[in-house]
Amino acid sequence: MKATFLYGAGDVRVEEVAQAKIEKPTDAVIRTVVACVCGSDLWDYYAKQPAETGVPKGHEVLGEIVELGAEVKNHKIGDLVVIPFVASCGFCDFCQANRQTSCRNIEYFGHGGGAACQAEFVRIPWADGTAVKVPVDANSPLIPSMLTLSDVLCTGYHAAVSAGVQQGETVVVIGDGAVGLSAVIGAKKLGAERIILVSSHEPRANLGRDFGATDIVSERGEEGIARIMELTNGDGAPRVLEAVGKQDAIDMSIAVTRDYGFIGRVGAAQYENMPLNFGTIMRNIGVYGGVAPARAYIEPLMQDILDGKINPGKVFDLSVSIDNIASGYKAMADRVAIKTLVTF
Amino acid sequence: MKATFLYGAGDVRVEEVAQAKIEKPTDAVIRTVVACVCGSDLWDYYAKQPAETGVPKGHEVLGEIVELGAEVKNHKIGDLVVIPFVASCGFCDFCQANRQTSCRNIEYFGHGGGAACQAEFVRIPWADGTAVKVPVDANSPLIPSMLTLSDVLCTGYHAAVSAGVQQGETVVVIGDGAVGLSAVIGAKKLGAERIILVSSHEPRANLGRDFGATDIVSERGEEGIARIMELTNGDGAPRVLEAVGKQDAIDMSIAVTRDYGFIGRVGAAQYENMPLNFGTIMRNIGVYGGVAPARAYIEPLMQDILDGKINPGKVFDLSVSIDNIASGYKAMADRVAIKTLVTF
Repeated sequence: MKATFLYGAGDVRVEEVAQAKIEKPTDAVIRTVVACVCGSDLWDYYAKQPAETGVPKGHEVLGEIVELGAEVKNHKIGDLVVIPFVASCGFCDFCQANRQTSCRNIEYFGHGGGAACQAEFVRIPWADGTAVKVPVDANSPLIPSMLTLSDVLCTGYHAAVSAGVQQGETVVVIGDGAVGLSAVIGAKKLGAERIILVSSHEPRANLGRDFGATDIVSERGEEGIARIMELTNGDGAPRVLEAVGKQDAIDMSIAVTRDYGFIGRVGAAQYENMPLNFGTIMRNIGVYGGVAPARAYIEPLMQDILDGKINPGKVFDLSVSIDNIASGYKAMADRVAIKTLVTF
Repeated sequence: MKATFLYGAGDVRVEEVAQAKIEKPTDAVIRTVVACVCGSDLWDYYAKQPAETGVPKGHEVLGEIVELGAEVKNHKIGDLVVIPFVASCGFCDFCQANRQTSCRNIEYFGHGGGAACQAEFVRIPWADGTAVKVPVDANSPLIPSMLTLSDVLCTGYHAAVSAGVQQGETVVVIGDGAVGLSAVIGAKKLGAERIILVSSHEPRANLGRDFGATDIVSERGEEGIARIMELTNGDGAPRVLEAVGKQDAIDMSIAVTRDYGFIGRVGAAQYENMPLNFGTIMRNIGVYGGVAPARAYIEPLMQDILDGKINPGKVFDLSVSIDNIASGYKAMADRVAIKTLVTF
C-alpha cells in the first residue's frame, strides 16, 4: 500500500509498504477514503534534519472498515468511520470522563510514533473506543466535513469549550488557520453573539465570516490589540481562543482578555512560558485547553454537519491525490492553501 | 489618630496623623476594633528602600461606623462592619457580577496608595458597596474570624473556587501561610474529600489538619512532588491551590496537577512566567484565579463562621496592640507567627 513519510525538511515521500493488518484483537483496519494534512504535520516539515528512515505522517483519516479484530463489537465490515487523531480504549477513567487524549491505553497515529494515516490502509487500535460510524455514503458531499471531525473541527471546538464560551458573549479568535476557523464554528455553536477573528488574509477572513465571525481584525501585534480593545469598549473579551501557538499570539491573547476572562488555548505551544505574572493575577486571567479530546466531540458536531448547520469541510481549499501529497504539504507551508484534502 | 507607615525595609512606625474623615458623600468612617498584618504587607517590609515619607500600611480591618456620608443608605452609626481589602462601588457591571477587584470605581487601602487600615480610624470609600455588617458584638470571640473575611479567608476560598473544586475531589494545597490554611477551609467548604497540604512546619500543619487537611506532605521540591504523586496514584490531583506565589510553588503546582485539572492561584506572583508550554498543552492543564473578590464571598463565609462550621480566626497566633505593631511585622517576617492580629 502507499503511505507517506517525511525524510527531512521539505522532503515528503509516498512509498510502497506492507499493507496495514490486524495486530491485536481490538484493532480494525480501514481502507482510506480521504485523509488530510494538518498544520501540525508541518512542524517537522519545516525543521526536520535529513534521516535515512522516514517518519510516518498523518493522523486524520476517514475510511471503510475492511478487517476487524475478534474482540471488536461496535463495528462491521463495510462501515464508513472517522478516526480521531489518537486511539483511545473507551473504558478507562479518562475515556469515561471524555478526556480521551489522556487515555490510559492511548495509541498514536502519525504523531508520536504511530502508523501513517496519509496511507491507503490504516490500522485502528482500540477500534471500539476510537472509530465512529459516519452515516453517509463515501461519495457524499459531506465527506470533507466529516473528515474535519478527526481533528481540526474538534480542536477548534475544544478552544471554545475550554474558554467556557457562554450564550451571548463576545469571543476573540486568534489564528486564521483551519483550527482558528473551526474555533469560530465552535464559538458560534456555544452561542457567542460576537466573534472577532484576527486575520490579515482576505480569503481566510471571508471563510471566517462564512463560519460566523462578525468582525475581522486585520492588524497584528500592538495595533491588533488596540483594535480589539476598541471593539470591546476597552475591556477586552471574556473569552479568547488561541489557535496559533506562537509567543506573539499568546501575548495578544493575554492582552485582549477581559478581567476574570478565559483563554482557551489549542495552538500547539512553540513557546516555553506564558507571561502569567503579577499583572494577570491582578486581573484574574484564566487559561485552559490543550490537545483536544476529539473523540468526545465527534457525535455532537457530526449531528450539526448532518443537519446542515455547519460546513467545516470548506477549510479544504486544495485537494490532491495521495501520489501528489508533497505538493499539498508545500501549498500549506507556503500559505497558499488553508488545508489540503488527500484523496485515494 | 495612630496609623502605621513603612519607611524602609524593617522600619515600621506608628505615627499620629489627622483623623480620617468623610471626603465624599458615599464614604463612611470607622473606628477600628481589630486590624491585622497580611503576608503581602511584608513584600516591601523586606525590600523597601529607605524614604523620607512613609507608606500607609494595612488593608484588613473591622470596626464600628462613627461617621456616614450623606448618600450612604445601607449602614448606620454604631454598626460593626468588616471591610474587604479593596473598596468597590457595588453598582458597576464588574461589581454586579461579583468581580469587585475589577470594579470600575475601585479605591484602594494601604495597598495601591490608599489609606492605612492599621490605624485607629479608616475612611471607607463606597461604604454601601464595600462594608458588610457583622452581626456580633465587638467583644465577641468570633471577631478574629470575622476579620479574616477582609482578605485571607476569602483569598483562600477564591483559590478553591477558581480551581473549580467539586464534591468528593482530591485537592492539593501548596502554601501553609494564612492564605494556604484558608484555602484548606475553602476546599473543604466546596466538598473536597481529600485535602493534601504541603507544609514542613508542624504547628501550621496541625492547624491545617484542624481546618480539614487529610494528608500532610512535608517534603519540598522534587521530593514533595514525588510524595504527592504517590498519594494520588501517580496521577496528581484534579485541583491544586497555589498560595505562595514563588516560582518553585508554581512549578510544583503544575507538576502535581492531574491531566485536565486546574490550578487555582492566589499567591501574589513573584515570578514573571508560568511554564505552560507544549508539555502542559498535551496534558490540558488549566489555571485560574488571582486577587480575590473578597466582597463576593463575605456573606456565605460569614454564615459558616456564625454557624460554627469554620474557625478561621485561628490563623492569628499573635496579638499585638497598635503601638507594638512593628513586633508583629517582625514575628511574621521571621516566620515565628503565622498572622498577627492588631488590637486598638
